[in-house]
Amino acid sequence: MSIHRVRVPELAARLVLGPQEVRHLQVMRLRPGDRVQAFDGQGGEAPAEIAELEEGRAVLTLDLTAGPDAGAADLGRETPQPVTLAIALLKGDKLADVVRAATELGVARVQLLVTAHADAREIGAQKLVRLRRVAEEAARQSRRRVVPEVLGPLPLARLTWEGRLVVAHPGAEARLPDLLDWAAPLTVLSGPEGGFSDTEIAGLLARGAVPVTLGPRILRAETAPLAMLGAVVATGV
Amino acid sequence: MSIHRVRVPELAARLVLGPQEVRHLQVMRLRPGDRVQAFDGQGGEAPAEIAELEEGRAVLTLDLTAGPDAGAADLGRETPQPVTLAIALLKGDKLADVVRAATELGVARVQLLVTAHADAREIGAQKLVRLRRVAEEAARQSRRRVVPEVLGPLPLARLTWEGRLVVAHPGAEARLPDLLDWAAPLTVLSGPEGGFSDTEIAGLLARGAVPVTLGPRILRAETAPLAMLGAVVATGV
Repeated sequence: MSIHRVRVPELAARLVLGPQEVRHLQVMRLRPGDRVQAFDGQGGEAPAEIAELEEGRAVLTLDLTAGPDAGAADLGRETPQPVTLAIALLKGDKLADVVRAATELGVARVQLLVTAHADAREIGAQKLVRLRRVAEEAARQSRRRVVPEVLGPLPLARLTWEGRLVVAHPGAEARLPDLLDWAAPLTVLSGPEGGFSDTEIAGLLARGAVPVTLGPRILRAETAPLAMLGAVVATGV
Repeated sequence: MSIHRVRVPELAARLVLGPQEVRHLQVMRLRPGDRVQAFDGQGGEAPAEIAELEEGRAVLTLDLTAGPDAGAADLGRETPQPVTLAIALLKGDKLADVVRAATELGVARVQLLVTAHADAREIGAQKLVRLRRVAEEAARQSRRRVVPEVLGPLPLARLTWEGRLVVAHPGAEARLPDLLDWAAPLTVLSGPEGGFSDTEIAGLLARGAVPVTLGPRILRAETAPLAMLGAVVATGV
């Protein structure tokens, strides 16, 4: 159907790929001679051909003559200003689900957070690698050139942001879709299952965070961030 | 912390509960003498006490004197007009995830659909029962009195709706948050992994469906409905 997309470490005329990418090519049932689209996760991409493919090793030849505009249609998939999802550590596989959907919904960055009621205080190196892989795979599936960064956990008090930060808060009246002006970057902040503590909320508001409504029901910690990001994309960005 | 909620078949002064509810009480570590809130999934609820609890059997006594307004705060959790999620059959466990999140996001009804590119043509009776149980459990967790109905699959051509029906469509410019006036019920229509066919879209538009944007990226079939419902709740309903 559509052309397959292959993540590459950089754009070069000839690239040798490692076992991870080779497995991806094999799963996609690609063969030597097949055309793919190479992308570097930083916005660069180029048409490519699979020159060699064997167990654990593949060679791609890239056509770099197409110039920087070759993937202009895909650049149009990015939001007018970068959106960051800042999210508390969650238990089990929930973060992977959130990272996957958030990538489809256009975030440029996921900043993990440790908060007072967070379900976990830290994240293993392996798990962080896995989240980055989930973001990469989701970017490929949603045809984004930019793979969101997934940044290891910071204490909430050390979170900084440019532009506007919105946080869902019970009783808030501001409506997220009304707040989007794209004059500056946007950060969407989402808490753990137990929510933010009163002290945390007070601290955020004192630093200029804007509380927004998600209606009167109780949302799970993995649903709230997607509702907020859904409200963002439903405005057409 | 908060009072536990127990689904009951009807509101009556004395109710004998079956194994399913008993297991729920046991998981919640409740004991004879504990107070709970009984709800019937139709909007009725009453304070109750666990009179007896043993393996496979429990008796609840309900206080029906509190009157129909006893749960008024919870009625405030419902949208101004009912929201229906009409969604194509999806593979694997994806429908359960969608039903769970859609319940949190306030839908009153989930109508399953068979469409041209649907991942499945039918759904087993057991699976439908399971989806209903997922809706029930999610309603309890999000403190809703109304448990969304989950209706077995209809062919898309036989889907009817009251009020407005919105469907995410690539290239659409209308913004869902701008369309919500709550003068009438709302139906949010979401397709299968392969999307709707051109014929299906043409038929829907001819019947007055309103195409809306979800931005320029490609969303999975389980992410798109939550993005639309997220946009609805982010307007405060």
